[in-house]
Amino acid sequence: MEQSRPLDALNRARNKRVLVELKNNKQYFGTLLAFDIHINTVLADAEEHVNGELKRKLGTLFIRGDTITILSPQ
Amino acid sequence: MEQSRPLDALNRARNKRVLVELKNNKQYFGTLLAFDIHINTVLADAEEHVNGELKRKLGTLFIRGDTITILSPQ
Amino acid sequence: MEQSRPLDALNRARNKRVLVELKNNKQYFGTLLAFDIHINTVLADAEEHVNGELKRKLGTLFIRGDTITILSPQ
Amino acid sequence: MEQSRPLDALNRARNKRVLVELKNNKQYFGTLLAFDIHINTVLADAEEHVNGELKRKLGTLFIRGDTITILSPQ
Amino acid sequence: MEQSRPLDALNRARNKRVLVELKNNKQYFGTLLAFDIHINTVLADAEEHVNGELKRKLGTLFIRGDTITILSPQ
Amino acid sequence: MEQSRPLDALNRARNKRVLVELKNNKQYFGTLLAFDIHINTVLADAEEHVNGELKRKLGTLFIRGDTITILSPQ
Amino acid sequence: MEQSRPLDALNRARNKRVLVELKNNKQYFGTLLAFDIHINTVLADAEEHVNGELKRKLGTLFIRGDTITILSPQ
Repeated sequence: MEQSRPLDALNRARNKRVLVELKNNKQYFGTLLAFDIHINTVLADAEEHVNGELKRKLGTLFIRGDTITILSPQ
Repeated sequence: MEQSRPLDALNRARNKRVLVELKNNKQYFGTLLAFDIHINTVLADAEEHVNGELKRKLGTLFIRGDTITILSPQ
Repeated sequence: MEQSRPLDALNRARNKRVLVELKNNKQYFGTLLAFDIHINTVLADAEEHVNGELKRKLGTLFIRGDTITILSPQ
Repeated sequence: MEQSRPLDALNRARNKRVLVELKNNKQYFGTLLAFDIHINTVLADAEEHVNGELKRKLGTLFIRGDTITILSPQ
Repeated sequence: MEQSRPLDALNRARNKRVLVELKNNKQYFGTLLAFDIHINTVLADAEEHVNGELKRKLGTLFIRGDTITILSPQ
Repeated sequence: MEQSRPLDALNRARNKRVLVELKNNKQYFGTLLAFDIHINTVLADAEEHVNGELKRKLGTLFIRGDTITILSPQ
Repeated sequence: MEQSRPLDALNRARNKRVLVELKNNKQYFGTLLAFDIHINTVLADAEEHVNGELKRKLGTLFIRGDTITILSPQ
């Protein structure tokens, strides 16, 4: 049986709402449009949350992969 | 005799409960679904603990490898 | 169907106004002229904002990719 | 005469008790089971010490290499 | 039409006065003599500014690329 | 005439007492047994000094290269 | 006309007095003996200065490149 790879989990989350958290503690909620092996990530309809509160609506958002700590489908 | 490699230990932990700790001191407990050579890791039924207390239930969780300090089967 | 890649989103933002945020929390607004796989980025008519206020007009601005956290078309 | 390489020293420490210290100042004592060229390391019967006091018994422990500062056979 | 790359912008700044800012917040003004793909940079007649004030005249200055945040022609 | 390379200086220090300083400001004195291109380093009869005072005797010590700032023969 | 590269500037500084500054703000003055593409650097007759004051004479000094911010011939 072939074993699961981490990017498979990201593929299953395409076009779904996800939470992305950064090393600077900011949270972004949005629809996962794209990612690559560096975990560079693009969200649509992105919202930035800080300390649990909506801070900004950002629309399309490119996040540089090396700044990401976790990504979780909502 | 062939010598053990670090990723062998991760392979033996597949589908088992593990603890993953990050450079930002957050702890995630979950079932190890997948990892790769960068130690990018996917947990199922993940729970975030901060200072020893359950803070969030996250379901499926992708953790970027470079943010991880330790991983230990529970 | 071919899947979207993160740099496609940057390509669609070429010659448009974008916001670039850095790890040091500075914000740059400008017209996206160029980027590469490291996310090294060049803006035209760049403005630096700190804490939401315009601080400097910088004209052409080269930003080293590894210092970037997010990039968003305006 | 062939010159010694750093990983030779780690090889001689296999199956022996070692101390591993991390950039976050945590100390782990355990039996060195495995390591690789990134210095990803696996300890058995691992104990975490903070400020010289035993804090946790962790059993099998995978430590991501880039978080390690020193490793010393005990 | 061929698309612009970030290093093209640096090439156009050769032999011109530029501002280089570092992750440690120091600013260097000088004439851009050389750079490479790591953004290692050499300035002539370099001046270091801290908090907007001239602190040192350094003559020829090599700046390691990974410490740079932005570079802007003056 | 062939030009000197940095690792030549380390080679000349083999089997001699050296000082190694880390990014966390710890100092290690010991006999240089081995190093590699990442500057991973092994010392024999290593002593850790903090703020100029002997803190621990460590015997054989593996130091991960990316944590090192300077190395100097004594 | 062939364009200047950053390491050419370092080559011209060989066997001359240089100043090297690190990310930890320490300054080293010495004679540039060797460097490589990582900017690993060896100085002879090196002196460490902190806050502008001579702190230590170190003789031969190997500096790991990734800890360097700037290098300037004196």
